[in-house]
Amino acid sequence: MSEYKHPLKDTEFVLNEVVGLDDLCHESGFEEINAELASAILTEAGKFGSAVLSPLNVVGDTQGVKLTEKGVEETSGFKQAYRQFAEGGWNSLIADEAFGGQGLPNVLGTAVNEIWQSANLSFGLCPLLTQGAVEAISHHGSDELKQTWLPKMISGEWTGTMNLTEPDAGTDLAAIKTRAVPEEDHYRIIGQKIFITWGDHQMTGNIIHLVLARLPDAPAGVKGISLFVVPKFLLDENGHPGKRNDVHCVSVEHKLGIHGSPTCVMSYGDNEGAIGYLVGEPHKGLSCMFTMMNCARQAVGLQGVAIAERSYQQALAYAKERLQGTNRDGSRFSIIKFPDVRRMLMQMKSSIEAMRCVALVGAASVDRAGRAQDEATRRKALARLELLTPIVKGWCTELAQEVTYLGTQINGGMGFIEETGSAQHYRDARILTIYEGTTGIQALDLVGRKTLLNRGESLAELMTEIEQTVMALEDQATLAAQGRALRKALDAGQAARRWLLDNASSDPSAAGSVSVQFMMLFGYLCGGWLMGHSALRAQTLLGAGKGDPEYLKAKLVTAQFFSEQLLPRTQASLEAIQAGSGSIMALNEDQF
Amino acid sequence: MSEYKHPLKDTEFVLNEVVGLDDLCHESGFEEINAELASAILTEAGKFGSAVLSPLNVVGDTQGVKLTEKGVEETSGFKQAYRQFAEGGWNSLIADEAFGGQGLPNVLGTAVNEIWQSANLSFGLCPLLTQGAVEAISHHGSDELKQTWLPKMISGEWTGTMNLTEPDAGTDLAAIKTRAVPEEDHYRIIGQKIFITWGDHQMTGNIIHLVLARLPDAPAGVKGISLFVVPKFLLDENGHPGKRNDVHCVSVEHKLGIHGSPTCVMSYGDNEGAIGYLVGEPHKGLSCMFTMMNCARQAVGLQGVAIAERSYQQALAYAKERLQGTNRDGSRFSIIKFPDVRRMLMQMKSSIEAMRCVALVGAASVDRAGRAQDEATRRKALARLELLTPIVKGWCTELAQEVTYLGTQINGGMGFIEETGSAQHYRDARILTIYEGTTGIQALDLVGRKTLLNRGESLAELMTEIEQTVMALEDQATLAAQGRALRKALDAGQAARRWLLDNASSDPSAAGSVSVQFMMLFGYLCGGWLMGHSALRAQTLLGAGKGDPEYLKAKLVTAQFFSEQLLPRTQASLEAIQAGSGSIMALNEDQF
Repeated sequence: MSEYKHPLKDTEFVLNEVVGLDDLCHESGFEEINAELASAILTEAGKFGSAVLSPLNVVGDTQGVKLTEKGVEETSGFKQAYRQFAEGGWNSLIADEAFGGQGLPNVLGTAVNEIWQSANLSFGLCPLLTQGAVEAISHHGSDELKQTWLPKMISGEWTGTMNLTEPDAGTDLAAIKTRAVPEEDHYRIIGQKIFITWGDHQMTGNIIHLVLARLPDAPAGVKGISLFVVPKFLLDENGHPGKRNDVHCVSVEHKLGIHGSPTCVMSYGDNEGAIGYLVGEPHKGLSCMFTMMNCARQAVGLQGVAIAERSYQQALAYAKERLQGTNRDGSRFSIIKFPDVRRMLMQMKSSIEAMRCVALVGAASVDRAGRAQDEATRRKALARLELLTPIVKGWCTELAQEVTYLGTQINGGMGFIEETGSAQHYRDARILTIYEGTTGIQALDLVGRKTLLNRGESLAELMTEIEQTVMALEDQATLAAQGRALRKALDAGQAARRWLLDNASSDPSAAGSVSVQFMMLFGYLCGGWLMGHSALRAQTLLGAGKGDPEYLKAKLVTAQFFSEQLLPRTQASLEAIQAGSGSIMALNEDQF
Repeated sequence: MSEYKHPLKDTEFVLNEVVGLDDLCHESGFEEINAELASAILTEAGKFGSAVLSPLNVVGDTQGVKLTEKGVEETSGFKQAYRQFAEGGWNSLIADEAFGGQGLPNVLGTAVNEIWQSANLSFGLCPLLTQGAVEAISHHGSDELKQTWLPKMISGEWTGTMNLTEPDAGTDLAAIKTRAVPEEDHYRIIGQKIFITWGDHQMTGNIIHLVLARLPDAPAGVKGISLFVVPKFLLDENGHPGKRNDVHCVSVEHKLGIHGSPTCVMSYGDNEGAIGYLVGEPHKGLSCMFTMMNCARQAVGLQGVAIAERSYQQALAYAKERLQGTNRDGSRFSIIKFPDVRRMLMQMKSSIEAMRCVALVGAASVDRAGRAQDEATRRKALARLELLTPIVKGWCTELAQEVTYLGTQINGGMGFIEETGSAQHYRDARILTIYEGTTGIQALDLVGRKTLLNRGESLAELMTEIEQTVMALEDQATLAAQGRALRKALDAGQAARRWLLDNASSDPSAAGSVSVQFMMLFGYLCGGWLMGHSALRAQTLLGAGKGDPEYLKAKLVTAQFFSEQLLPRTQASLEAIQAGSGSIMALNEDQF
């Protein structure tokens, strides 16, 4: 079992030197928030994560959850931990102050969330999903719905879930069959939903399900889906949970990882029909979902950073302890001395630091898009947010696979033994490229809605900004090589963008065929950009005698490693993109 | 649970068109073997694998093994399957006819072995380890040892194990502590070994352990290790298993995968000391191990091919069945129509076909090195064998991680659910880059013993041969683009070789820092070379109206995909290599 310690110094560096937290707060109306307060909150969160959530991580994995007559029973200890979590106010950091939230910036909430997800990914999913449900109601619910449900979801007294998937409707939500029948001031919901994370548990007095379903007069396809609030317990006249609603967990999945997080099959309306309340307008459920999709997808991207960090800490501890080399005098040394072990550790470290930059810059764009004072800034930030979301989700979670793989690899034979702990991180990470839209879906979103739809404008704007960093790097003698590497990657990005714009209309398979390579290319480019920016800031701070010199020097090395070892992958992606769809689409199905 | 069907057509193509089986048999004294016989054997093996071994694969995963008072009890059904396996003569294919073997070429045994490993990796490990033990005794044992142990190990009546690792001695065998004390005509073995695959079970009447231990007068380090045969049951005067020897399994590991394969902690000499017999000369145990290392490592590389094939078959079936797109008329289509799903399937397919080529060409070099009629051919084949072994092991098993990852990815949410079956392949595959020498160890072997030690001569010779394929491709109008891509990869290989030769002596960390990138580069280059060769053969056969045109046309597409989508990775590896060890070695340990 491995311990977890939040890498506060790196988070502070990214917030202050890469995101520019103080400026962001000033520009976006969070005047009372600053770097100092952020560090205080992160420090407290780090303590809670290490002391309370992290020790339960392996318990969740080995004990899992079980379905009994009472419903789903979560892992022992989770209930107490959840209570402490809610009492500590951790559930309400970024929520609206009007409903009891603390109104902190999203980027700070995201930085804190990394701690929960590193400490205990299974546990962390519960508040993560609740936050998604809170956002759906906040943005689209009537005042009455908000007053009824939000305060206790924000305080953490109740949790929330998202119910989209059905056995025949995963990626293809057009196929949703769950029905909603109007009755008085509410609806009766009837249908089955699968893969519902934290769909049931005994930790709180109520669970608020957000459910996609079809009204009787709904048009076919995605334009006929509506969104409903369906509580586990209906509220009595005092607003307290009363009568059991007709929604039940009928089974829990047996999964590769995140065993502490119940993945439920939820049955609505086995008897009289589950009572639900419409959120927003009829048939507009999908757009309600899309509002919160950006945040939910970014949150899963962040889980990639978090699980990678956890795996790194475990592998690093092992590499420092494990004696496996023999000196000439017969004394032994630890495996961290071996260059290939260092290569793996450096690859983990630099990937994580780059991912953390990309994820927090993405999170900051949510704040700017929502709250910047002038509309032009908001509009620009929204475009950036939309562009970065599939990259944060797709690239960070794909990279997390490689990082957690290296984590087990550093452990050698012990990495394959469950008790070592590394394998759990590897298994847990596996879900991240699948849920909340697979990597393929993120990549399609990037090439389609986020690029082709605006003729590549968002990407062009991003690359103009990256160009500034390239020039700044080239101006510094000691960073010029990083500048050249970044320029080469930027050129690849420009060429990929051009290729897509030139070929997408003439070849209907082009965008889909190259999409994942395209997304990965821009992921590495963004990582290289922000690591380059980090190197510039580290050098400036070192020159000014500010900050922790050991940390800053390490940052320079990590940035150099990223540019030498990871940025060249953009060339391979570009070549693959330029090959187009030919060999991908050529076989008929029988030839596979 | 997924079914398994051996891809006979592709194996035949690789044996006949890439390896050149008939020529090989003719040159190496296997006159009675030819393509027709090979196909007949493969067909029978395929039936046995599908009917008997494959259905037990998921049973092994879910039921696992348990340690009871009787020792290790293997998964239900494995004992009956093993008996059928031995009775079918499958254990003795390539063994020496003098001891009851069938004397088939190693390359054919390897092609058959792919079937066992695809059908049931956990089961397949048992004969694989037995073969390793048979080789150790065959090459180094006295005539008496051979007569005593080999016939029943070859018939499959008894199984064999390899006991190298101890808690403090994994990669670093110099640290082995197990002792061997001489006594009369034998030795008493005392010590503990870990990670012993199939170290105990109830399937056969005896288990023959090959054990590394130190004699009392042994020099320190790897030059003081000797090899011993230690049977579970000592033989009575009639050569039948009699008295229990003092060796016992004291625990079994709880692992990420291959649950059907018991991984044992073996204790030698808890009481009077386990009786063992010296194999070869005292203190020469490590070189005995090295003899069989090539074959064992190639066999694990082949497991990479096998598990990738199994994962592909499962994912392909899912992609054809799973309806998740909706046509304009409301009808639905399966996900194999989506370009990104096709990209993943093509990547799996082309990776597997390339790996199969590399693994079988490696296996053929064993036959040529051992049996070619003239010494020059044998010597050349030995150099090739030594060069290819770390590539077969390292590259194929690394690629198997990516392939099995894509297998689960194609399954979407279902890929994370254990009952779907894909996750088992992903978990099982994870051990392959660890055991029998980690990827790092393979890569060190390639850059060190196999390249620097002969000043890059073996690599130069390999690349001269690849150059021939480049030119042949460039000569064909329809394959010229593949030729150019292969030339670019070949140039990268030449540059990487030069870089290593130029830098290894001046920078002691250089070889270790770049080794894995170096190994992967040559893996892709070898894959591209043999896929290019395959394309040339497919085109020739199509032109001559021979063979199955649908299969051959698909091969052309798969080869094109490999050259477009996978060969460009060699450029990224080259850039990473040329960056050297600087950023890899720069941090002090506290800066991580």
